[in-house]
Amino acid sequence: MNKLYIIKIGGNSIDHPDDLDQFLTDFSSLEGLKILVHGGGKIATTFADELGIEAKMVNGRRITDSETLRIVTMVYAGLISKNIIAQLQAKNCNATGLTGADGNLIATHKRPVKDIDYGFVGDIHEASVNIEMLDKLLDAGLIPVFSAITHNGKGQLLNTNADTIASAIAIALSKLYDTTLMYCFEKKGVLRDVKDENSCISELNFKDYTALKSNGNIHEGMLPKLDNAFNAMHHGVKKVIICHAKDLKKQNRNENFGTQLVL
Amino acid sequence: MNKLYIIKIGGNSIDHPDDLDQFLTDFSSLEGLKILVHGGGKIATTFADELGIEAKMVNGRRITDSETLRIVTMVYAGLISKNIIAQLQAKNCNATGLTGADGNLIATHKRPVKDIDYGFVGDIHEASVNIEMLDKLLDAGLIPVFSAITHNGKGQLLNTNADTIASAIAIALSKLYDTTLMYCFEKKGVLRDVKDENSCISELNFKDYTALKSNGNIHEGMLPKLDNAFNAMHHGVKKVIICHAKDLKKQNRNENFGTQLVL
Repeated sequence: MNKLYIIKIGGNSIDHPDDLDQFLTDFSSLEGLKILVHGGGKIATTFADELGIEAKMVNGRRITDSETLRIVTMVYAGLISKNIIAQLQAKNCNATGLTGADGNLIATHKRPVKDIDYGFVGDIHEASVNIEMLDKLLDAGLIPVFSAITHNGKGQLLNTNADTIASAIAIALSKLYDTTLMYCFEKKGVLRDVKDENSCISELNFKDYTALKSNGNIHEGMLPKLDNAFNAMHHGVKKVIICHAKDLKKQNRNENFGTQLVL
Repeated sequence: MNKLYIIKIGGNSIDHPDDLDQFLTDFSSLEGLKILVHGGGKIATTFADELGIEAKMVNGRRITDSETLRIVTMVYAGLISKNIIAQLQAKNCNATGLTGADGNLIATHKRPVKDIDYGFVGDIHEASVNIEMLDKLLDAGLIPVFSAITHNGKGQLLNTNADTIASAIAIALSKLYDTTLMYCFEKKGVLRDVKDENSCISELNFKDYTALKSNGNIHEGMLPKLDNAFNAMHHGVKKVIICHAKDLKKQNRNENFGTQLVL
């Protein structure tokens, strides 16, 4: 099986042009097949502010009304995606910017309204990822770069969590490739003590994670990421690493870094 | 040689959701391989207004300063492109939204500053279109949909005339395919009398065009389109039709419509 990296880059790195440029250089240098999934950063919020549209959040999740969907489609799939692509092209990385609608690559279900109406949010299901088409793009020598927009197959774009997209792609492609999923963000990894940047846990197994979670010892914002990450491990992804975006370059040097998950 | 259509759809059709939906239905039904190139419409201008950014035009051409580039990237490559893709997917047309940066499909040169500084505008050159990669996408069963954004290969996105992009793609792919280029817009074709909607010229040859042009009998806005169109004919494109967006469906029925160019 060929090696394939699925790299998720968080919003914080996208907000800082120098950090993003360094990250894209390191991503370009990564040996082997690779796919990038990017978050949105604060640009969408800033932009909504400029237009006088209030960002609506419930439990840390953005509520996507039609105005917000317009904005995230413009900012994620337009501004951020295409600038990343132009920068990667300048680094000889033949990237192509995609949403889930493009090539019908990721179809989702609009989240059902229960206690909260999340609006135009798409949830991944088992058959979401179009493995065959994604494989054709890789075969063509392209580096797929996904923004966190999907579609429902009926003409509706949907906002989808980027961590979940990365995990779903990694799971789907683990049928064809030896898949490594890396969550790159602004911390060195999963921290034992959220106030201590150097308390990075180098290896985290599922039992310890469950214990840390029930003790409330893991920062709340990390939980969806780790749930997605362990879900990937449980569904065929060989290796999952949670690390600082600046540490991506260590992967080529075979150094240890970040938090590696084990089952 | 397989048949390939390159269809340009103008901004006016994009501004009217019902017209756009009908056009996309007709585009989806078009038999054979096909590529869509879309303009931007008035959405970018409306949007710039909302943000208090003034649109700068010289000789009917938009001046693309960095703020304008941000907006057209968001609106053309994000909002318009991805909504078109979601709609086409709902019509079982496996489209993928592209700029020239994606897959390095169209590289351009930033227009040199002479009398006017057009800003971030990219001009097509002979080697602009990445024929090999575009062919791979068609081979993969994808329908490429281009917005009018390209790149210079050095990390800079550039605004590029959509008519010229359509013509350049048609010329490049005429080496591999039996290529028909269609400019779809809000008139029935090239009008002999711009005030008479029914004065459509059914066949226009280059000599007559040159005469009509020097007599001032062709509407100024049509000149760049027709120059692009005849340029395509002079460079290997088999058939060029200028027609109303609503007449695209007549192509499948082998009816005569619009203005067909002849050399």
